[in-house]
Amino acid sequence: MYNSFHLSDYLGRCRETIDTALVDLFDQVDQNRRIVAAMRYAVMGNGKRLRPILCFAAAEAVNGSSGDAILPAIALELIHTYSLIHDDLPAMDNDSLRRGNPTCHIAFDEATAILAGDALLTLAFEIITDPAFSAPAPEMRLGAVRIIAQAAGYQGMVEGQMRDILAEGRRLSIDALKSSHALKTGALIRAAVETGATLAGGSPHQVKQLRQYADDIGLAFQVTDDILNVEGDPDRMGKAVGTDADRQKNTYPALLGLDASKTLANTLVSHALSSLDIFDHSADPLRAIATYIIERKR
Amino acid sequence: MYNSFHLSDYLGRCRETIDTALVDLFDQVDQNRRIVAAMRYAVMGNGKRLRPILCFAAAEAVNGSSGDAILPAIALELIHTYSLIHDDLPAMDNDSLRRGNPTCHIAFDEATAILAGDALLTLAFEIITDPAFSAPAPEMRLGAVRIIAQAAGYQGMVEGQMRDILAEGRRLSIDALKSSHALKTGALIRAAVETGATLAGGSPHQVKQLRQYADDIGLAFQVTDDILNVEGDPDRMGKAVGTDADRQKNTYPALLGLDASKTLANTLVSHALSSLDIFDHSADPLRAIATYIIERKR
Repeated sequence: MYNSFHLSDYLGRCRETIDTALVDLFDQVDQNRRIVAAMRYAVMGNGKRLRPILCFAAAEAVNGSSGDAILPAIALELIHTYSLIHDDLPAMDNDSLRRGNPTCHIAFDEATAILAGDALLTLAFEIITDPAFSAPAPEMRLGAVRIIAQAAGYQGMVEGQMRDILAEGRRLSIDALKSSHALKTGALIRAAVETGATLAGGSPHQVKQLRQYADDIGLAFQVTDDILNVEGDPDRMGKAVGTDADRQKNTYPALLGLDASKTLANTLVSHALSSLDIFDHSADPLRAIATYIIERKR
Repeated sequence: MYNSFHLSDYLGRCRETIDTALVDLFDQVDQNRRIVAAMRYAVMGNGKRLRPILCFAAAEAVNGSSGDAILPAIALELIHTYSLIHDDLPAMDNDSLRRGNPTCHIAFDEATAILAGDALLTLAFEIITDPAFSAPAPEMRLGAVRIIAQAAGYQGMVEGQMRDILAEGRRLSIDALKSSHALKTGALIRAAVETGATLAGGSPHQVKQLRQYADDIGLAFQVTDDILNVEGDPDRMGKAVGTDADRQKNTYPALLGLDASKTLANTLVSHALSSLDIFDHSADPLRAIATYIIERKR
Protein backbone atom coordinates (compact mmCIF):
# COMPACT_ATOMS: atom_id res chain seq x y z
CA MET A 1 0.00 0.00 0.00
CA TYR A 2 1.41 3.37 -0.99
CA ASN A 3 0.32 5.07 2.22
CA SER A 4 1.84 2.41 4.40
CA PHE A 5 5.25 2.76 2.78
CA HIS A 6 7.68 4.26 5.25
CA LEU A 7 10.17 6.29 3.30
CA SER A 8 12.49 7.11 6.17
CA ASP A 9 12.89 3.40 7.01
CA TYR A 10 13.50 2.66 3.37
CA LEU A 11 16.08 5.41 2.96
CA GLY A 12 17.77 4.26 6.16
CA ARG A 13 18.04 0.68 4.89
CA CYS A 14 19.37 1.80 1.52
CA ARG A 15 21.93 4.10 3.13
CA GLU A 16 23.07 1.30 5.40
CA THR A 17 23.53 -1.00 2.40
CA ILE A 18 25.56 1.53 0.46
CA ASP A 19 27.54 2.76 3.47
CA THR A 20 28.46 -0.81 4.41
CA ALA A 21 29.63 -1.44 0.85
CA LEU A 22 31.69 1.76 0.86
CA VAL A 23 33.26 1.02 4.25
CA ASP A 24 34.15 -2.50 3.07
CA LEU A 25 35.73 -1.00 -0.01
CA PHE A 26 38.03 1.30 1.94
CA ASP A 27 38.73 -1.22 4.71
CA GLN A 28 40.48 -3.39 2.14
CA VAL A 29 43.21 -0.83 1.56
CA ASP A 30 45.93 0.86 3.56
CA GLN A 31 44.27 3.63 5.57
CA ASN A 32 47.54 5.41 6.21
CA ARG A 33 48.06 6.44 2.62
CA ARG A 34 47.19 10.08 2.07
CA ILE A 35 45.30 9.46 -1.16
CA VAL A 36 43.13 6.80 0.52
CA ALA A 37 42.49 9.06 3.52
CA ALA A 38 41.33 11.87 1.23
CA MET A 39 39.11 9.56 -0.85
CA ARG A 40 37.56 8.08 2.27
CA TYR A 41 37.09 11.49 3.89
CA ALA A 42 35.11 12.73 0.90
CA VAL A 43 33.06 9.56 0.39
CA MET A 44 32.19 8.96 4.04
CA GLY A 45 30.90 12.51 4.58
CA ASN A 46 27.27 12.99 5.50
CA GLY A 47 25.88 12.34 1.99
CA LYS A 48 22.25 11.75 1.03
CA ARG A 49 23.25 8.77 -1.16
CA LEU A 50 20.49 9.77 -3.58
CA ARG A 51 22.01 8.09 -6.63
CA PRO A 52 22.58 4.68 -4.99
CA ILE A 53 19.08 4.84 -3.48
CA LEU A 54 17.56 5.57 -6.89
CA CYS A 55 19.61 2.75 -8.38
CA PHE A 56 18.28 0.29 -5.76
CA ALA A 57 14.70 1.58 -6.06
CA ALA A 58 14.77 1.28 -9.86
CA ALA A 59 15.97 -2.32 -9.56
CA GLU A 60 13.09 -3.03 -7.18
CA ALA A 61 10.57 -1.30 -9.46
CA VAL A 62 11.26 -3.96 -12.11
CA ASN A 63 10.97 -6.66 -9.42
CA GLY A 64 14.70 -7.06 -8.89
CA SER A 65 16.57 -6.41 -5.65
CA SER A 66 19.12 -3.92 -4.42
CA GLY A 67 21.72 -6.68 -4.75
CA ASP A 68 21.32 -6.55 -8.52
CA ALA A 69 22.26 -2.89 -8.46
CA ILE A 70 25.03 -2.76 -5.85
CA LEU A 71 27.94 -2.35 -8.30
CA PRO A 72 26.55 0.64 -10.23
CA ALA A 73 25.21 2.05 -6.94
CA ILE A 74 28.73 2.16 -5.48
CA ALA A 75 30.20 3.42 -8.76
CA LEU A 76 27.66 6.25 -8.99
CA GLU A 77 28.30 7.41 -5.44
CA LEU A 78 32.07 7.43 -6.08
CA ILE A 79 31.53 9.47 -9.25
CA HIS A 80 29.16 11.85 -7.51
CA THR A 81 31.73 12.36 -4.75
CA TYR A 82 34.54 12.98 -7.25
CA SER A 83 32.41 15.62 -8.97
CA LEU A 84 31.78 17.38 -5.66
CA ILE A 85 35.50 17.41 -4.80
CA HIS A 86 36.43 18.91 -8.16
CA ASP A 87 33.50 21.37 -8.23
CA ASP A 88 34.55 22.68 -4.82
CA LEU A 89 38.14 23.43 -5.93
CA PRO A 90 39.39 27.04 -5.83
CA ALA A 91 39.55 27.14 -9.66
CA MET A 92 35.89 26.07 -9.84
CA ASP A 93 33.28 27.04 -7.21
CA ASN A 94 35.84 27.63 -4.44
CA ASP A 95 33.67 26.21 -1.66
CA SER A 96 35.10 25.56 1.77
CA LEU A 97 32.16 23.67 3.31
CA ARG A 98 30.46 20.52 2.03
CA ARG A 99 27.97 18.36 3.91
CA GLY A 100 28.84 20.33 7.07
CA ASN A 101 32.54 19.58 6.86
CA PRO A 102 35.57 21.30 5.33
CA THR A 103 35.80 20.47 1.64
CA CYS A 104 38.50 18.02 0.58
CA HIS A 105 41.00 20.66 -0.56
CA ILE A 106 40.59 22.47 2.78
CA ALA A 107 40.89 19.31 4.89
CA PHE A 108 43.88 18.12 2.82
CA ASP A 109 45.25 20.36 0.07
CA GLU A 110 44.47 21.22 -3.51
CA ALA A 111 46.78 18.68 -5.16
CA THR A 112 45.49 15.88 -2.94
CA ALA A 113 41.88 16.88 -3.66
CA ILE A 114 42.43 16.82 -7.43
CA LEU A 115 44.05 13.40 -7.15
CA ALA A 116 41.39 12.05 -4.78
CA GLY A 117 38.72 13.05 -7.30
CA ASP A 118 40.66 11.42 -10.12
CA ALA A 119 41.09 8.27 -8.05
CA LEU A 120 37.39 8.04 -7.13
CA LEU A 121 36.34 8.44 -10.76
CA THR A 122 38.76 5.69 -11.78
CA LEU A 123 37.72 3.42 -8.90
CA ALA A 124 34.09 3.68 -10.03
CA PHE A 125 34.96 1.82 -13.22
CA GLU A 126 37.21 -0.67 -11.42
CA ILE A 127 34.37 -1.54 -9.03
CA ILE A 128 32.02 -2.53 -11.85
CA THR A 129 34.56 -5.12 -12.97
CA ASP A 130 35.08 -6.57 -9.47
CA PRO A 131 35.40 -10.37 -9.86
CA ALA A 132 34.38 -10.85 -6.21
CA PHE A 133 30.80 -10.41 -7.44
CA SER A 134 29.55 -13.40 -9.42
CA ALA A 135 26.77 -11.38 -11.08
CA PRO A 136 25.83 -9.59 -13.25
CA ALA A 137 27.22 -11.06 -16.48
CA PRO A 138 30.09 -9.26 -18.28
CA GLU A 139 27.79 -7.96 -21.02
CA MET A 140 25.53 -6.33 -18.43
CA ARG A 141 28.48 -4.85 -16.57
CA LEU A 142 29.95 -3.46 -19.76
CA GLY A 143 26.57 -1.84 -20.47
CA ALA A 144 26.69 -0.23 -17.02
CA VAL A 145 30.21 1.07 -17.70
CA ARG A 146 28.90 2.64 -20.91
CA ILE A 147 25.81 4.24 -19.33
CA ILE A 148 27.82 5.66 -16.44
CA ALA A 149 30.74 6.89 -18.56
CA GLN A 150 28.40 8.66 -20.98
CA ALA A 151 26.46 10.26 -18.13
CA ALA A 152 29.58 11.41 -16.29
CA GLY A 153 31.63 12.63 -19.25
CA TYR A 154 31.88 15.42 -21.75
CA GLN A 155 28.35 14.84 -23.05
CA GLY A 156 26.93 14.75 -19.53
CA MET A 157 28.06 15.91 -16.11
CA VAL A 158 31.39 17.45 -17.16
CA GLU A 159 29.66 19.47 -19.90
CA GLY A 160 27.09 20.65 -17.34
CA GLN A 161 29.83 21.91 -15.02
CA MET A 162 31.60 23.59 -17.95
CA ARG A 163 28.37 25.40 -18.90
CA ASP A 164 27.84 26.37 -15.29
CA ILE A 165 31.25 28.04 -15.21
CA LEU A 166 30.79 29.71 -18.61
CA ALA A 167 27.41 31.08 -17.49
CA GLU A 168 28.91 32.98 -14.55
CA GLY A 169 28.09 36.65 -14.90
CA ARG A 170 25.75 36.00 -17.87
CA ARG A 171 22.00 35.78 -17.57
CA LEU A 172 20.71 32.50 -19.05
CA SER A 173 17.30 31.75 -20.53
CA ILE A 174 15.23 29.30 -18.51
CA ASP A 175 15.69 26.70 -21.26
CA ALA A 176 19.46 27.09 -21.18
CA LEU A 177 19.40 26.71 -17.40
CA LYS A 178 17.27 23.58 -17.64
CA SER A 179 19.54 21.94 -20.21
CA SER A 180 22.60 22.87 -18.17
CA HIS A 181 21.10 21.12 -15.15
CA ALA A 182 19.92 18.17 -17.20
CA LEU A 183 23.62 17.63 -17.88
CA LYS A 184 25.16 18.63 -14.56
CA THR A 185 22.91 16.67 -12.20
CA GLY A 186 20.27 15.05 -14.40
CA ALA A 187 22.56 12.79 -16.41
CA LEU A 188 23.93 10.90 -13.40
CA ILE A 189 20.47 10.57 -11.81
CA ARG A 190 19.18 9.12 -15.05
CA ALA A 191 22.17 6.74 -15.14
CA ALA A 192 21.26 5.60 -11.62
CA VAL A 193 17.75 4.44 -12.54
CA GLU A 194 18.88 3.16 -15.94
CA THR A 195 21.67 0.96 -14.58
CA GLY A 196 19.55 -0.23 -11.65
CA ALA A 197 16.61 -1.20 -13.87
CA THR A 198 18.78 -2.69 -16.62
CA LEU A 199 20.87 -4.89 -14.34
CA ALA A 200 17.69 -6.12 -12.63
CA GLY A 201 16.27 -7.23 -15.97
CA GLY A 202 13.85 -4.39 -16.72
CA SER A 203 12.20 -4.34 -20.15
CA PRO A 204 12.99 -1.55 -22.63
CA HIS A 205 9.55 -0.02 -22.00
CA GLN A 206 10.09 -0.07 -18.23
CA VAL A 207 13.53 1.48 -18.62
CA LYS A 208 12.11 4.18 -20.90
CA GLN A 209 9.47 5.15 -18.32
CA LEU A 210 12.07 5.18 -15.56
CA ARG A 211 14.33 7.44 -17.61
CA GLN A 212 11.46 9.90 -17.97
CA TYR A 213 10.86 9.71 -14.23
CA ALA A 214 14.55 10.36 -13.60
CA ASP A 215 14.72 13.35 -15.92
CA ASP A 216 11.80 14.97 -14.11
CA ILE A 217 13.02 14.32 -10.58
CA GLY A 218 16.56 15.28 -11.54
CA LEU A 219 15.36 18.70 -12.59
CA ALA A 220 13.03 18.94 -9.58
CA PHE A 221 16.03 18.14 -7.37
CA GLN A 222 18.03 21.02 -8.83
CA VAL A 223 15.12 23.47 -8.59
CA THR A 224 14.72 22.49 -4.93
CA ASP A 225 18.45 22.92 -4.35
CA ASP A 226 18.16 26.47 -5.67
CA ILE A 227 15.11 27.14 -3.49
CA LEU A 228 16.95 25.82 -0.42
CA ASN A 229 19.84 28.13 -1.21
CA VAL A 230 17.36 31.00 -0.83
CA GLU A 231 15.26 29.94 2.14
CA GLY A 232 16.94 26.84 3.63
CA ASP A 233 18.30 26.49 7.16
CA PRO A 234 22.12 26.53 7.02
CA ASP A 235 22.38 24.41 10.17
CA ARG A 236 20.26 21.61 8.69
CA MET A 237 21.94 21.85 5.31
CA GLY A 238 25.47 21.89 6.61
CA LYS A 239 26.42 24.67 4.24
CA ALA A 240 25.87 28.38 3.76
CA VAL A 241 22.72 29.75 2.10
CA GLY A 242 22.29 32.89 0.01
CA THR A 243 25.54 32.09 -1.79
CA ASP A 244 23.90 31.80 -5.23
CA ALA A 245 22.44 35.31 -4.99
CA ASP A 246 25.78 36.68 -3.75
CA ARG A 247 27.47 35.21 -6.81
CA GLN A 248 24.63 36.30 -9.10
CA LYS A 249 24.29 32.71 -10.23
CA ASN A 250 21.64 31.64 -12.69
CA THR A 251 19.05 29.87 -10.55
CA TYR A 252 15.36 29.10 -10.89
CA PRO A 253 14.40 31.56 -8.13
CA ALA A 254 16.52 34.26 -9.83
CA LEU A 255 15.00 33.64 -13.27
CA LEU A 256 11.43 32.65 -12.37
CA GLY A 257 10.92 33.92 -8.83
CA LEU A 258 10.46 31.75 -5.75
CA ASP A 259 6.75 30.93 -6.18
CA ALA A 260 7.03 29.94 -9.84
CA SER A 261 10.08 27.82 -8.95
CA LYS A 262 8.04 25.93 -6.36
CA THR A 263 5.25 25.42 -8.89
CA LEU A 264 7.78 24.11 -11.41
CA ALA A 265 9.18 21.63 -8.89
CA ASN A 266 5.65 20.39 -8.08
CA THR A 267 4.73 20.02 -11.76
CA LEU A 268 7.90 18.04 -12.43
CA VAL A 269 7.18 15.67 -9.58
CA SER A 270 3.57 15.14 -10.77
CA HIS A 271 4.92 14.29 -14.20
CA ALA A 272 7.51 11.96 -12.70
CA LEU A 273 4.77 10.14 -10.79
CA SER A 274 2.68 9.69 -13.93
CA SER A 275 5.65 8.00 -15.63
CA LEU A 276 5.43 5.34 -12.93
CA ASP A 277 1.78 4.47 -13.71
CA ILE A 278 2.83 1.28 -15.52
CA PHE A 279 4.36 -0.06 -12.28
CA ASP A 280 2.58 -1.63 -9.29
CA HIS A 281 3.58 -1.20 -5.64
CA SER A 282 7.11 -2.25 -6.57
CA ALA A 283 7.63 1.39 -7.56
CA ASP A 284 6.40 2.83 -4.25
CA PRO A 285 9.95 3.69 -3.15
CA LEU A 286 10.46 5.70 -6.36
CA ARG A 287 7.10 7.43 -5.78
CA ALA A 288 7.99 8.38 -2.24
CA ILE A 289 11.45 9.57 -3.28
CA ALA A 290 9.91 11.90 -5.89
CA THR A 291 7.86 13.60 -3.19
CA TYR A 292 10.78 13.64 -0.74
CA ILE A 293 12.97 15.42 -3.26
CA ILE A 294 10.91 18.59 -3.15
CA GLU A 295 9.95 18.36 0.53
CA ARG A 296 13.47 17.82 1.88
CA LYS A 297 15.08 20.45 4.08
CA ARG A 298 18.69 19.66 3.12
CA MET B 1 64.89 -10.31 -39.41
CA TYR B 2 65.64 -8.13 -36.41
CA ASN B 3 68.22 -6.04 -38.23
CA SER B 4 65.94 -5.38 -41.15
CA PHE B 5 63.18 -4.04 -38.92
CA HIS B 6 62.74 -0.33 -39.47
CA LEU B 7 61.60 1.20 -36.22
CA SER B 8 60.92 4.67 -37.52
CA ASP B 9 58.58 3.29 -40.21
CA TYR B 10 56.87 1.15 -37.60
CA LEU B 11 56.44 4.03 -35.15
CA GLY B 12 55.12 6.21 -37.98
CA ARG B 13 52.51 3.62 -38.97
CA CYS B 14 51.42 3.11 -35.37
CA ARG B 15 51.17 6.86 -34.77
CA GLU B 16 49.11 7.24 -37.92
CA THR B 17 46.74 4.50 -36.76
CA ILE B 18 46.25 6.03 -33.34
CA ASP B 19 46.09 9.63 -34.57
CA THR B 20 43.46 8.70 -37.18
CA ALA B 21 41.40 7.00 -34.47
CA LEU B 22 41.73 10.03 -32.20
CA VAL B 23 40.81 12.49 -34.95
CA ASP B 24 37.77 10.37 -35.84
CA LEU B 25 36.77 10.38 -32.21
CA PHE B 26 36.79 14.16 -31.93
CA ASP B 27 35.35 14.75 -35.40
CA GLN B 28 32.15 13.11 -34.24
CA VAL B 29 31.43 15.85 -31.71
CA ASP B 30 30.77 19.56 -31.72
CA GLN B 31 34.14 21.28 -32.09
CA ASN B 32 32.82 24.61 -30.86
CA ARG B 33 32.24 23.44 -27.33
CA ARG B 34 34.95 24.66 -24.99
CA ILE B 35 35.35 21.34 -23.22
CA VAL B 36 35.80 19.51 -26.53
CA ALA B 37 38.30 22.11 -27.75
CA ALA B 38 40.37 21.69 -24.58
CA MET B 39 40.26 17.88 -24.75
CA ARG B 40 41.24 17.92 -28.40
CA TYR B 41 44.00 20.48 -27.82
CA ALA B 42 45.62 18.28 -25.19
CA VAL B 43 45.21 14.98 -27.05
CA MET B 44 46.32 16.21 -30.48
CA GLY B 45 49.54 17.76 -29.17
CA ASN B 46 52.84 16.39 -30.38
CA GLY B 47 52.77 13.19 -28.28
CA LYS B 48 55.02 10.17 -28.64
CA ARG B 49 52.01 7.81 -28.42
CA LEU B 50 54.21 5.36 -26.54
CA ARG B 51 51.37 3.57 -24.76
CA PRO B 52 49.25 2.90 -27.88
CA ILE B 53 52.38 1.79 -29.75
CA LEU B 54 53.26 -0.67 -26.97
CA CYS B 55 49.67 -1.87 -26.95
CA PHE B 56 49.81 -2.57 -30.72
CA ALA B 57 53.27 -4.13 -30.53
CA ALA B 58 52.21 -6.43 -27.68
CA ALA B 59 49.20 -7.58 -29.72
CA GLU B 60 51.54 -8.33 -32.63
CA ALA B 61 54.02 -10.15 -30.40
CA VAL B 62 51.35 -12.76 -29.65
CA ASN B 63 50.52 -12.94 -33.38
CA GLY B 64 47.52 -10.64 -33.23
CA SER B 65 47.16 -7.31 -35.01
CA SER B 66 46.93 -3.66 -34.00
CA GLY B 67 43.21 -3.88 -34.76
CA ASP B 68 42.77 -6.21 -31.79
CA ALA B 69 44.23 -3.54 -29.54
CA ILE B 70 42.74 -0.34 -30.92
CA LEU B 71 40.21 0.23 -28.11
CA PRO B 72 42.64 -0.01 -25.18
CA ALA B 73 45.22 1.88 -27.26
CA ILE B 74 42.89 4.86 -27.58
CA ALA B 75 41.78 4.57 -23.95
CA LEU B 76 45.37 4.52 -22.70
CA GLU B 77 46.34 7.59 -24.71
CA LEU B 78 43.31 9.47 -23.36
CA ILE B 79 44.24 8.48 -19.81
CA HIS B 80 47.87 9.41 -20.35
CA THR B 81 46.78 12.82 -21.66
CA TYR B 82 44.43 13.41 -18.72
CA SER B 83 47.28 12.64 -16.32
CA LEU B 84 49.54 15.16 -18.05
CA ILE B 85 46.87 17.88 -17.90
CA HIS B 86 46.29 17.35 -14.19
CA ASP B 87 50.01 16.94 -13.36
CA ASP B 88 50.72 20.28 -15.09
CA LEU B 89 48.15 22.20 -12.99
CA PRO B 90 49.34 25.02 -10.72
CA ALA B 91 48.45 22.99 -7.61
CA MET B 92 50.61 20.12 -8.88
CA ASP B 93 53.78 20.60 -10.96
CA ASN B 94 52.76 24.05 -12.26
CA ASP B 95 54.20 23.56 -15.74
CA SER B 96 53.45 26.01 -18.53
CA LEU B 97 54.93 24.06 -21.47
CA ARG B 98 54.11 20.55 -22.62
CA ARG B 99 55.12 18.92 -25.89
CA GLY B 100 56.33 22.35 -27.07
CA ASN B 101 52.95 24.02 -26.53
CA PRO B 102 51.32 25.91 -23.68
CA THR B 103 49.84 23.48 -21.18
CA CYS B 104 46.07 23.10 -21.16
CA HIS B 105 45.45 25.42 -18.20
CA ILE B 106 47.58 28.12 -19.88
CA ALA B 107 45.92 27.73 -23.31
CA PHE B 108 42.45 27.62 -21.68
CA ASP B 109 42.14 28.13 -17.94
CA GLU B 110 42.48 26.09 -14.79
CA ALA B 111 38.81 25.11 -14.44
CA THR B 112 38.63 24.04 -18.09
CA ALA B 113 41.86 22.04 -17.72
CA ILE B 114 40.58 20.18 -14.66
CA LEU B 115 37.34 19.37 -16.49
CA ALA B 116 39.11 18.39 -19.72
CA GLY B 117 41.23 15.92 -17.73
CA ASP B 118 38.15 14.53 -16.01
CA ALA B 119 36.39 14.19 -19.36
CA LEU B 120 39.31 12.39 -21.02
CA LEU B 121 39.58 9.92 -18.16
CA THR B 122 35.86 9.22 -18.40
CA LEU B 123 35.94 8.97 -22.20
CA ALA B 124 38.65 6.30 -21.96
CA PHE B 125 36.18 3.95 -20.32
CA GLU B 126 33.36 4.91 -22.67
CA ILE B 127 35.57 4.09 -25.69
CA ILE B 128 36.17 0.54 -24.53
CA THR B 129 32.41 -0.06 -24.57
CA ASP B 130 31.91 1.42 -28.06
CA PRO B 131 29.33 -0.76 -29.86
CA ALA B 132 30.62 0.46 -33.25
CA PHE B 133 33.39 -2.12 -32.78
CA SER B 134 32.15 -5.69 -33.21
CA ALA B 135 35.13 -7.14 -31.34
CA PRO B 136 36.45 -7.94 -28.80
CA ALA B 137 33.79 -9.79 -26.78
CA PRO B 138 32.26 -8.11 -23.71
CA GLU B 139 34.22 -10.30 -21.29
CA MET B 140 37.50 -9.25 -22.91
CA ARG B 141 36.51 -5.59 -22.89
CA LEU B 142 35.51 -5.75 -19.25
CA GLY B 143 38.92 -7.25 -18.50
CA ALA B 144 40.54 -4.31 -20.28
CA VAL B 145 38.44 -1.87 -18.22
CA ARG B 146 39.70 -3.59 -15.07
CA ILE B 147 43.37 -3.63 -16.09
CA ILE B 148 43.30 0.02 -17.11
CA ALA B 149 41.30 1.25 -14.10
CA GLN B 150 43.64 -0.54 -11.69
CA ALA B 151 46.71 0.84 -13.43
CA ALA B 152 45.38 4.41 -13.55
CA GLY B 153 43.86 4.62 -10.08
CA TYR B 154 44.79 4.92 -6.42
CA GLN B 155 46.90 1.73 -6.52
CA GLY B 156 48.70 2.86 -9.66
CA MET B 157 49.26 6.15 -11.46
CA VAL B 158 47.37 8.37 -9.00
CA GLU B 159 49.32 6.93 -6.07
CA GLY B 160 52.55 7.53 -7.98
CA GLN B 161 51.70 11.20 -8.49
CA MET B 162 50.69 11.51 -4.83
CA ARG B 163 54.05 10.07 -3.74
CA ASP B 164 55.82 12.38 -6.16
CA ILE B 165 54.20 15.38 -4.51
CA LEU B 166 54.82 14.11 -0.98
CA ALA B 167 58.48 13.52 -1.82
CA GLU B 168 59.10 17.15 -2.73
CA GLY B 169 61.85 18.54 -0.53
CA ARG B 170 62.62 15.09 0.93
CA ARG B 171 65.47 12.90 -0.25
CA LEU B 172 64.22 9.45 -1.24
CA SER B 173 66.09 6.15 -1.27
CA ILE B 174 66.67 4.70 -4.71
CA ASP B 175 64.16 1.92 -3.93
CA ALA B 176 61.49 4.42 -2.94
CA LEU B 177 62.12 6.35 -6.15
CA LYS B 178 61.85 3.17 -8.22
CA SER B 179 58.58 2.12 -6.64
CA SER B 180 57.19 5.64 -7.03
CA HIS B 181 57.97 5.49 -10.75
CA ALA B 182 56.69 1.96 -11.09
CA LEU B 183 53.35 3.45 -10.05
CA LYS B 184 53.45 6.82 -11.76
CA THR B 185 54.53 5.75 -15.24
CA GLY B 186 55.15 2.01 -15.01
CA ALA B 187 51.61 0.94 -14.21
CA LEU B 188 50.08 2.40 -17.38
CA ILE B 189 52.91 1.08 -19.58
CA ARG B 190 52.34 -2.36 -18.11
CA ALA B 191 48.59 -1.98 -18.76
CA ALA B 192 49.39 -1.15 -22.39
CA VAL B 193 51.21 -4.41 -23.10
CA GLU B 194 48.86 -6.40 -20.90
CA THR B 195 45.66 -5.22 -22.63
CA GLY B 196 47.23 -5.48 -26.09
CA ALA B 197 48.45 -9.03 -25.53
CA THR B 198 45.30 -10.16 -23.73
CA LEU B 199 42.87 -8.85 -26.34
CA ALA B 200 44.95 -10.46 -29.09
CA GLY B 201 44.67 -13.84 -27.38
CA GLY B 202 48.06 -14.09 -25.69
CA SER B 203 48.64 -17.02 -23.31
CA PRO B 204 49.15 -16.39 -19.57
CA HIS B 205 52.85 -17.20 -19.95
CA GLN B 206 53.23 -14.77 -22.85
CA VAL B 207 51.41 -12.05 -20.90
CA LYS B 208 53.63 -12.67 -17.86
CA GLN B 209 56.80 -12.24 -19.93
CA LEU B 210 55.40 -9.10 -21.53
CA ARG B 211 54.57 -7.66 -18.11
CA GLN B 212 58.16 -8.16 -17.04
CA TYR B 213 59.33 -6.48 -20.26
CA ALA B 214 56.98 -3.57 -19.56
CA ASP B 215 58.14 -3.10 -15.98
CA ASP B 216 61.74 -2.89 -17.12
CA ILE B 217 61.19 -0.52 -20.02
CA GLY B 218 58.79 1.58 -17.94
CA LEU B 219 61.52 2.21 -15.42
CA ALA B 220 64.13 2.68 -18.18
CA PHE B 221 61.82 5.26 -19.73
CA GLN B 222 61.68 7.24 -16.48
CA VAL B 223 65.43 7.02 -15.90
CA THR B 224 65.95 8.33 -19.44
CA ASP B 225 63.44 11.13 -18.84
CA ASP B 226 65.48 12.20 -15.83
CA ILE B 227 68.72 12.03 -17.83
CA LEU B 228 67.17 14.12 -20.61
CA ASN B 229 66.14 16.69 -18.03
CA VAL B 230 69.85 17.06 -17.23
CA GLU B 231 71.47 16.91 -20.64
CA GLY B 232 68.66 17.01 -23.22
CA ASP B 233 68.15 19.65 -25.92
CA PRO B 234 65.21 21.87 -24.93
CA ASP B 235 64.42 22.64 -28.60
CA ARG B 236 64.07 18.94 -29.49
CA MET B 237 62.20 18.13 -26.29
CA GLY B 238 59.75 21.00 -26.54
CA LYS B 239 60.16 21.77 -22.85
CA ALA B 240 62.70 23.26 -20.48
CA VAL B 241 65.59 21.21 -19.09
CA GLY B 242 67.33 21.53 -15.74
CA THR B 243 63.96 21.97 -14.04
CA ASP B 244 64.32 18.88 -11.86
CA ALA B 245 67.58 20.13 -10.36
CA ASP B 246 66.07 23.60 -9.83
CA ARG B 247 63.22 22.01 -7.88
CA GLN B 248 65.58 19.64 -6.07
CA LYS B 249 63.47 16.74 -7.31
CA ASN B 250 64.35 13.16 -6.56
CA THR B 251 65.77 11.84 -9.83
CA TYR B 252 68.11 9.04 -10.81
CA PRO B 253 70.90 11.45 -11.79
CA ALA B 254 70.50 13.23 -8.44
CA LEU B 255 70.56 10.01 -6.42
CA LEU B 256 72.94 7.86 -8.48
CA GLY B 257 74.86 10.30 -10.66
CA LEU B 258 74.59 10.57 -14.44
CA ASP B 259 76.86 7.65 -15.38
CA ALA B 260 75.28 5.16 -13.01
CA SER B 261 71.84 6.29 -14.25
CA LYS B 262 72.86 5.49 -17.83
CA THR B 263 74.16 2.11 -16.73
CA LEU B 264 70.90 1.42 -14.93
CA ALA B 265 68.87 2.28 -18.04
CA ASN B 266 71.03 -0.04 -20.15
CA THR B 267 70.74 -2.89 -17.65
CA LEU B 268 66.96 -2.52 -17.55
CA VAL B 269 66.72 -2.64 -21.33
CA SER B 270 68.93 -5.77 -21.48
CA HIS B 271 66.67 -7.41 -18.95
CA ALA B 272 63.58 -6.33 -20.90
CA LEU B 273 65.02 -7.89 -24.04
CA SER B 274 65.70 -11.19 -22.29
CA SER B 275 62.03 -11.34 -21.25
CA LEU B 276 61.22 -11.43 -24.96
CA ASP B 277 63.34 -14.53 -25.64
CA ILE B 278 60.24 -16.75 -25.81
CA PHE B 279 58.96 -14.76 -28.81
CA ASP B 280 60.05 -15.01 -32.44
CA HIS B 281 60.30 -12.09 -34.88
CA SER B 282 56.74 -11.09 -33.95
CA ALA B 283 58.29 -9.29 -30.98
CA ASP B 284 60.84 -7.32 -33.06
CA PRO B 285 58.85 -4.10 -32.65
CA LEU B 286 58.95 -4.49 -28.87
CA ARG B 287 62.71 -5.19 -29.05
CA ALA B 288 63.34 -2.10 -31.12
CA ILE B 289 61.15 0.05 -28.84
CA ALA B 290 63.16 -1.03 -25.79
CA THR B 291 66.34 0.25 -27.40
CA TYR B 292 64.64 3.39 -28.68
CA ILE B 293 63.46 4.28 -25.19
CA ILE B 294 66.97 4.90 -23.91
CA GLU B 295 68.36 6.30 -27.16
CA ARG B 296 65.62 8.86 -27.76
CA LYS B 297 66.40 12.56 -27.64
CA ARG B 298 62.97 13.76 -26.53
